[in-house]
Amino acid sequence: MDHNLPHTISLLTRIPAALNAFLRDLPETWTSRNEGENTWSVFDIVGHLIHGERTDWMPRARMILQFGETKAFEPFDRWGQEREVQGKSLAQLLDEFARLRSESLSELRALNLRKEDLDRRGRHPALGVVTLSQLLATWAAHDLTHLHQISRVMAHQYREAVGPWSAYLGVLQCAGHSSP
Amino acid sequence: MDHNLPHTISLLTRIPAALNAFLRDLPETWTSRNEGENTWSVFDIVGHLIHGERTDWMPRARMILQFGETKAFEPFDRWGQEREVQGKSLAQLLDEFARLRSESLSELRALNLRKEDLDRRGRHPALGVVTLSQLLATWAAHDLTHLHQISRVMAHQYREAVGPWSAYLGVLQCAGHSSP
Repeated sequence: MDHNLPHTISLLTRIPAALNAFLRDLPETWTSRNEGENTWSVFDIVGHLIHGERTDWMPRARMILQFGETKAFEPFDRWGQEREVQGKSLAQLLDEFARLRSESLSELRALNLRKEDLDRRGRHPALGVVTLSQLLATWAAHDLTHLHQISRVMAHQYREAVGPWSAYLGVLQCAGHSSP
Repeated sequence: MDHNLPHTISLLTRIPAALNAFLRDLPETWTSRNEGENTWSVFDIVGHLIHGERTDWMPRARMILQFGETKAFEPFDRWGQEREVQGKSLAQLLDEFARLRSESLSELRALNLRKEDLDRRGRHPALGVVTLSQLLATWAAHDLTHLHQISRVMAHQYREAVGPWSAYLGVLQCAGHSSP
């Protein structure tokens, strides 16, 4: 399936409401526990999504349109959520994510990107040349990666509680595939 | 973390609303495509969740309370969703899942289960002796397994579109861990 910008926007639009319906007011044992040392809780993951809205997606899209391949993106700080989450509740983070995502998508829509814009190229500090289309598709797949992670982190909390059924639950066999 | 029934109910309560916010009216390319032969689309997965509400969770809880270890559960039909989804739209499936889940949880709450009830034992046709507590914890973890699967099936549709970023997206490294 090729990248389709309206489909990407449809998905990106829904994620804040989906996380809100799923996570708001859940008992903290689901949202504040992680998978062990140097891993993230649901709370941390929502902070990471906020940090991505501020520093990754639209800032990088602007850089591609402005500088093309001549200037590499700022490296993304994978622990940048530590500043985002300090002193906040999960409800506050969910509100903030929804607000920032809505602003990002307003900006994206206002660009009125055409096919030839999506083919424009930028420079990733580690991956090299990438296109605007790849960046926007990655934004959607990144939301999905973290939904995948959220479901895994939560399921981990019941690893023992499910008893022999653990053999049948795919999410409990998932090792995460990425750091973190 | 031990099994905690109110926490299980909190999670089970939110999943229909979360799936609704996420999936309703998404372009069909996200919800009708699968990961290849003999794999499930998002549409199939919602059908599977419906089939579980009808035949798995509360029916098995009732069997444990009524028959204990003396009578094994009916084996669960892992392709039972084929009947559930026929001729239906995703919106209809989401409504049906929400209605059935709400009925299941009303019945569960009405049982007023005490600690000693949760320790009661039943017989799984393949796994042998299991407890009511394990069954209910598995119900929650099963929702999470399928949220994990939904995010993976959707991300798969953008496997090519993300270009070199695929190396960073954990969900694209996930092989699924279970059939199917």
